[in-house]
Amino acid sequence: MQRRSFLKHAGLGAVAGSAAVAAPVFAQDAPTLNWRMASSFPRSLDTLFGTGEIFVKFVSEATGGKFNIRQFPGGEIVPALQVMDAVSNNTIECGHTVSYYYYGKDPAYCFDSAVPFGLNARQMNAWMFDGDGMKLTREMFKPLKIVNFPMGNTGVQMGGWYRKEIKSPEDLKGLKMRTAGFAGEVLSRMGVVPQQLAGGDVYPSLEKGTLDAVEFVGPYDDEKLGFNKVAKYYYYPGWWEGGPQVSLYLNEGAWEGLPKSYQAIVEAASRVAHVAMTSRYDALNPPALRKLIAGGAELRAFPRSVMDASYEAALTVYKEFSDKDPKFKAIYENYMGFRDSVVPWFRLAEGSYDQYLGVAMAGRK
Amino acid sequence: MQRRSFLKHAGLGAVAGSAAVAAPVFAQDAPTLNWRMASSFPRSLDTLFGTGEIFVKFVSEATGGKFNIRQFPGGEIVPALQVMDAVSNNTIECGHTVSYYYYGKDPAYCFDSAVPFGLNARQMNAWMFDGDGMKLTREMFKPLKIVNFPMGNTGVQMGGWYRKEIKSPEDLKGLKMRTAGFAGEVLSRMGVVPQQLAGGDVYPSLEKGTLDAVEFVGPYDDEKLGFNKVAKYYYYPGWWEGGPQVSLYLNEGAWEGLPKSYQAIVEAASRVAHVAMTSRYDALNPPALRKLIAGGAELRAFPRSVMDASYEAALTVYKEFSDKDPKFKAIYENYMGFRDSVVPWFRLAEGSYDQYLGVAMAGRK
Repeated sequence: MQRRSFLKHAGLGAVAGSAAVAAPVFAQDAPTLNWRMASSFPRSLDTLFGTGEIFVKFVSEATGGKFNIRQFPGGEIVPALQVMDAVSNNTIECGHTVSYYYYGKDPAYCFDSAVPFGLNARQMNAWMFDGDGMKLTREMFKPLKIVNFPMGNTGVQMGGWYRKEIKSPEDLKGLKMRTAGFAGEVLSRMGVVPQQLAGGDVYPSLEKGTLDAVEFVGPYDDEKLGFNKVAKYYYYPGWWEGGPQVSLYLNEGAWEGLPKSYQAIVEAASRVAHVAMTSRYDALNPPALRKLIAGGAELRAFPRSVMDASYEAALTVYKEFSDKDPKFKAIYENYMGFRDSVVPWFRLAEGSYDQYLGVAMAGRK
Repeated sequence: MQRRSFLKHAGLGAVAGSAAVAAPVFAQDAPTLNWRMASSFPRSLDTLFGTGEIFVKFVSEATGGKFNIRQFPGGEIVPALQVMDAVSNNTIECGHTVSYYYYGKDPAYCFDSAVPFGLNARQMNAWMFDGDGMKLTREMFKPLKIVNFPMGNTGVQMGGWYRKEIKSPEDLKGLKMRTAGFAGEVLSRMGVVPQQLAGGDVYPSLEKGTLDAVEFVGPYDDEKLGFNKVAKYYYYPGWWEGGPQVSLYLNEGAWEGLPKSYQAIVEAASRVAHVAMTSRYDALNPPALRKLIAGGAELRAFPRSVMDASYEAALTVYKEFSDKDPKFKAIYENYMGFRDSVVPWFRLAEGSYDQYLGVAMAGRK
């Protein structure tokens, strides 16, 4: 039943005979398949949308053009923030999205992307692939009939654009900020008033002063939006997104209906895209940041008092969610246990190396 | 000719008819191939050797078992440090090795792995995939008929084990240290006497005092060797290996003889392995470090004076090599230009985030 359902939706177009021996159609090694992938991203966010393009290109090439996945930008066949439902329902075979978009359904989904004071990009890979991350997120998405793979990570994001400087936790009180999800929940505990605004309304609202701050991604994506002209203080780090992972969702029936060879190809292609997103951001953010600074952006680090207050607020929210939901508690404790295990090592070796390079570079200028 | 040569060596065992239409054997979509891959690593270094296993597993699965690559540990069919020659000569179709092992042939090869005060693992990915790294390393290996892909990165390594504390650059003078290649060259400028010793001789030499120090990898690999018992000071960071990349080498003729679909599969499988090596090290190093400390290892950061002297010595060597060889100079300037572009951004966003997490974790203990 599941299998038939898959074949119906999978758009098994041509039944090309490529098996060496006579075999039933369902058992053939390399069926021709036409799938659709709904992205949560617009074409204009070319690092995010572009990662999906890399994925579908590799799947097609690796199958000699037999397995074609057509990617659609957010909103084209599925609303940008409803990719989870569409994959779960098998309206589409797969999607490219961020699990924290579905915080409203279950805050625990955020552990598949990013949570406040969570893992950085490399640590997230280590938890997913060599900790319990893959296993636990698969279990979490199992009731939705979604099979997930990591497919991209932006690296740590910026803390956003602010019309006024944030010098202490007091300055957050009453701040109207475009933010949502887990970050919005924690920020609201510190007095921030989260605002939900459509993308096009953000700039005029900042200009008019009906909005005080906005968090988006990082220099490369932010630079396109011109926020530096209306909210010049650009804060770091985005402590609610230390290493946000982007996910490939596959409908379970669609996935299980694939030949093993196509499953291996899908996984391997997703890994090419996974690496590509981070490397693109890492290459593109630095020049974009220089442009932003030349355009008047003023960089500011969140003061230690703000970081500490944010950390305390996050712990409060984690405790509430854990008390309320044992499933949240289980994945939270595993994830944070991993973080607490690896952070001291990262601080020691990677941290001291990176810091010295930074100092040495600065000294040479 | 190239193509025939490839087929001869490639061990095209069975000519399984898997094409849907009659076609000459050479044009078939999914030929059965049996290749050999020489690793530079022993089975005992399971993160390094294991990465090769992941690669061959994905290639096999993605081709429905048609493209089989058998991996051999260092020394079994090719001496561990002669993988480059063996791939270049098409003695074997591919190899898994580290380009800085071939420093003696050309120091510029090190830019495909690690150089003193070079890129960290993420920055290396960014240079390879979204800077000029892939293009420049391909050009560099072209005369050897080697096609390279990144296939693993250990992350920053440790600075090694020392019988005595290193409190100033003076303490390096006359130090007999097992090291080689680019690191050995730079260290020798500071008075270190690099020693070439077989692996099995290192421990007894440290014990007897005929060797003062040894650099190896990081906690997970080092822990197996017990150096903490004979040289307890464990220094960081390994400034000569900020993000050492491991490489897949393919013989050019073998590569070009592959169908496009197999080429895509090889590249995608190499990326799975690439991510896996770093995530394994990142997950395994922290508990190994804790074990080492429990076993008496004493962690020490290289003092700032030693880091500065090392940095100056590295600059001297870079200048000499650049003056001597315009090809070295070209890739050096591209690589370091990229580093200088990205390091300030990494220091800002990733650095401040990682540092805060480290402080917050430490505060909770």
